[in-house]
Amino acid sequence: MSLTDMQRCIQECQRCREVCLQAVVHCLRRGGRHAEAGHITTLLDCVEMCATSANFMLRESMRHRRVCEICAEICDACAKSCATFRDDDEMRRCEAECHRCAELCREMAGTSARA
Amino acid sequence: MSLTDMQRCIQECQRCREVCLQAVVHCLRRGGRHAEAGHITTLLDCVEMCATSANFMLRESMRHRRVCEICAEICDACAKSCATFRDDDEMRRCEAECHRCAELCREMAGTSARA
Amino acid sequence: MSLTDMQRCIQECQRCREVCLQAVVHCLRRGGRHAEAGHITTLLDCVEMCATSANFMLRESMRHRRVCEICAEICDACAKSCATFRDDDEMRRCEAECHRCAELCREMAGTSARA
Amino acid sequence: MSLTDMQRCIQECQRCREVCLQAVVHCLRRGGRHAEAGHITTLLDCVEMCATSANFMLRESMRHRRVCEICAEICDACAKSCATFRDDDEMRRCEAECHRCAELCREMAGTSARA
Repeated sequence: MSLTDMQRCIQECQRCREVCLQAVVHCLRRGGRHAEAGHITTLLDCVEMCATSANFMLRESMRHRRVCEICAEICDACAKSCATFRDDDEMRRCEAECHRCAELCREMAGTSARA
Repeated sequence: MSLTDMQRCIQECQRCREVCLQAVVHCLRRGGRHAEAGHITTLLDCVEMCATSANFMLRESMRHRRVCEICAEICDACAKSCATFRDDDEMRRCEAECHRCAELCREMAGTSARA
Repeated sequence: MSLTDMQRCIQECQRCREVCLQAVVHCLRRGGRHAEAGHITTLLDCVEMCATSANFMLRESMRHRRVCEICAEICDACAKSCATFRDDDEMRRCEAECHRCAELCREMAGTSARA
Repeated sequence: MSLTDMQRCIQECQRCREVCLQAVVHCLRRGGRHAEAGHITTLLDCVEMCATSANFMLRESMRHRRVCEICAEICDACAKSCATFRDDDEMRRCEAECHRCAELCREMAGTSARA
């Protein structure tokens, strides 16, 4: 896997982290079902795992593949949680970002065939 | 300032971070005013700043004093936000923890006279 | 798994994170083989993964098991890296802490049989 | 201050964080004076403070100004540490990035006149 693939994945993790953290604030402001513990926790999980994943790649850690594998799972869960808010553009944007991040993380993990 | 003072401050930052992160989950579950954006954001600020502050001390960074100074301010703000929930034991516990952490951080910062 | 098991694991992750971050400073000061990129990076991996793992448990995230599973692997790798410095008490202490953390994380992950 | 100014500062903090973390790996590989505890610790301080600062802005926290103020100081210190390695392009790049980040953080903090 070329350096360029890793750099694309790092950038995507950063972007996904950013979109998910902004989504936390958006959802808390909307209130109601948007602010339920399960959804906000899932967004915070994604914020943190994307940061961890990006940092493992930035450190060129030998163990970044396993971390990217879990990051993809966390992103999938976050996309699924966002997908339950069909009429909210912010949630659709967050869902799309999480899908993209999950895909690139799976490529980094070398598990795209399994996906 | 002895090593023991710094270690007490590190431990307190870790504990405050932990109590505030558990408070986030508690407040989201309670819902209503507990789950308002301003309060949850203030708790998340405190979680992050306590971690940052502890890490600067663990790295024995020359610049830990300034970081502890800000951490004390963030803890004060969090204590104040928790204090608005008078009938909630979790919030009172979080408020007390934030006060303790603010006090120890101010001692580390060498700004206790100003406080 | 009882709340007490999770709280023990959270405490252990915090302690391991702390010991590993102090080990980074120790190793950089010792210099030579202690300060090699591979070893320091492995310590920083462990610092970050233990924090992530503790946070997933503190948020009572549904996905904490998978994160603990990876955390155990990162701790194993860190223990192994520390074990190459036989005559250094700090490294032996860090190795022991990483072993303990790996064990508790594997229990949380429900993968102790495989370990 | 417009949203655009804050978004520029968030992007710059992310970029600075990334460049500084890659610089840690670079310096550890170079070894010698590059891998001294003071320099590596300063880089790690900058990595962490830039992340904290970006997160406060992403959460639209009321207290982001004070955090940006300290972040600017940490970036200044990191730029200064990098500036001692005159013949190393990576260090010059990191120095330039830290200067840019310090400047934008000071603007956010509303302290640019004092700088």
